[in-house]
Amino acid sequence: MTRTAFFISDGTGITAESLGRSLLAQFSGVAITMLTKPYIDTVEKARELAGVIDATAGRDGVQPIVIDTIVNEDIREVIRTATCFKIDVFSTFLAPLEEELATHSSYSVGRTHAIGSDDVYMDRIHSVHFALDNDDGARTYQYDEADIILIGVSRCGKTPTSLYLALQFGIRAANYPLTEDDQDEDGVLRLPQFLAKHHHKLFGLTIDARRLAAIRHERRPNSRYSSMDQCLQEVEQVEALYRSLHIPSIDTTRFSVEEISTRMIAETGLVRRFSPR
Amino acid sequence: MTRTAFFISDGTGITAESLGRSLLAQFSGVAITMLTKPYIDTVEKARELAGVIDATAGRDGVQPIVIDTIVNEDIREVIRTATCFKIDVFSTFLAPLEEELATHSSYSVGRTHAIGSDDVYMDRIHSVHFALDNDDGARTYQYDEADIILIGVSRCGKTPTSLYLALQFGIRAANYPLTEDDQDEDGVLRLPQFLAKHHHKLFGLTIDARRLAAIRHERRPNSRYSSMDQCLQEVEQVEALYRSLHIPSIDTTRFSVEEISTRMIAETGLVRRFSPR
Repeated sequence: MTRTAFFISDGTGITAESLGRSLLAQFSGVAITMLTKPYIDTVEKARELAGVIDATAGRDGVQPIVIDTIVNEDIREVIRTATCFKIDVFSTFLAPLEEELATHSSYSVGRTHAIGSDDVYMDRIHSVHFALDNDDGARTYQYDEADIILIGVSRCGKTPTSLYLALQFGIRAANYPLTEDDQDEDGVLRLPQFLAKHHHKLFGLTIDARRLAAIRHERRPNSRYSSMDQCLQEVEQVEALYRSLHIPSIDTTRFSVEEISTRMIAETGLVRRFSPR
Repeated sequence: MTRTAFFISDGTGITAESLGRSLLAQFSGVAITMLTKPYIDTVEKARELAGVIDATAGRDGVQPIVIDTIVNEDIREVIRTATCFKIDVFSTFLAPLEEELATHSSYSVGRTHAIGSDDVYMDRIHSVHFALDNDDGARTYQYDEADIILIGVSRCGKTPTSLYLALQFGIRAANYPLTEDDQDEDGVLRLPQFLAKHHHKLFGLTIDARRLAAIRHERRPNSRYSSMDQCLQEVEQVEALYRSLHIPSIDTTRFSVEEISTRMIAETGLVRRFSPR
């Protein structure tokens, strides 16, 4: 028996989905199809969706799970009429919060998403373009402006992490790939001078060599670049560098970009320019 | 009187913060300082944090609000001893879900974040690099592989949106800036041939000319590029183009990148390659 879960919102659906996935992840033994339904912001859309939920209940032979963060009472009421097991996040938590804060909540549609303000937008645009301009060691001269500089071997996750930090938190992250060009005449990896002077901003990424080889193989199959020997040697060299210079680092092998980014912030005390959600 | 809210998690804190901000956004009249505390994954860290919460209660003269998504019972128990108004998301919703699903939940730390799988990682890396390679009309030849192609005037939000679609959903988004180079000899904006053949993949962005001028002014102050006249004319031309060719579009002026992206997915039926949260 498979079950269906609907994450329903009058906005982006990000909160409902995030919460829903967290809760349902605790039931790994149950096969659940998860569907996100954002922008259910009128009674008409809610009626249509209630029809879909009812049809799903008939098809599955069991009522779907509904997790919603709809603010408007009329719209919520329509969803409630569908055949479903409903987890009503706002009505569960807003009443006790109203009591604790000794005030009424606004219940206004869209109030959740006060994230499109001009300042946030400008910060975000600026941070994203900063990350792009300073990606992959392209323009080293903006390191003065960087909040953090990610270093590591090619394809260890620097670019996605820099962009995530920029988009989600407005953090200006540069990144620089450590390659054979950064070795001295004895073949030992050295920190370039323009990075050494920003030592306090450096954060190292490392990765399991086997995983690295697989990732590089996608890009350049059967090359020296993607060979196990090459990957092993590069990873050993950067890890030795981090140790000898006391550069904080994180192994990206087992972590998602969200985890790498939030762990980095927690560890360094980096200040977020905004909180998008 | 100012109040403090703590969003506490044994993982990234993304779910706790997202839910917390949504709930507290309903109380616009109350000044609340919001703090996210991720990776509280040991009893020791929880004890330390409980101390911080108690100290905050003393300083504020009122108990802080705590919203947590900690799975481990022992760690939750420590937080519960702090002076706070606690919204315990998991214990509130997991019990009824266990009943509905007729099974026990796993309550395992980290279970929430089954997002670092190899497939998701590869999809994400690929999508991010696709967005970068196809940013700003840099390499038009990969449009065959694109899931969606964003078009619009320079600085209307194409790049952040493309990157967000890639990072959050694994969607391969190219983007192309419509400029004076795309005008015919009469000065009328035309769709370039290499875009016209992908008509079904096109999605237009537009923006309020005043806002556009402000954004461009940050980049090139007092230039023709950032002048109100120029911005007005460019915006009018792209909007006329969208209308005449029936290209779906969205006005980015009032929306966050999250909203633009999720609305685009809702409107086009684009399929997400993964769901990161």
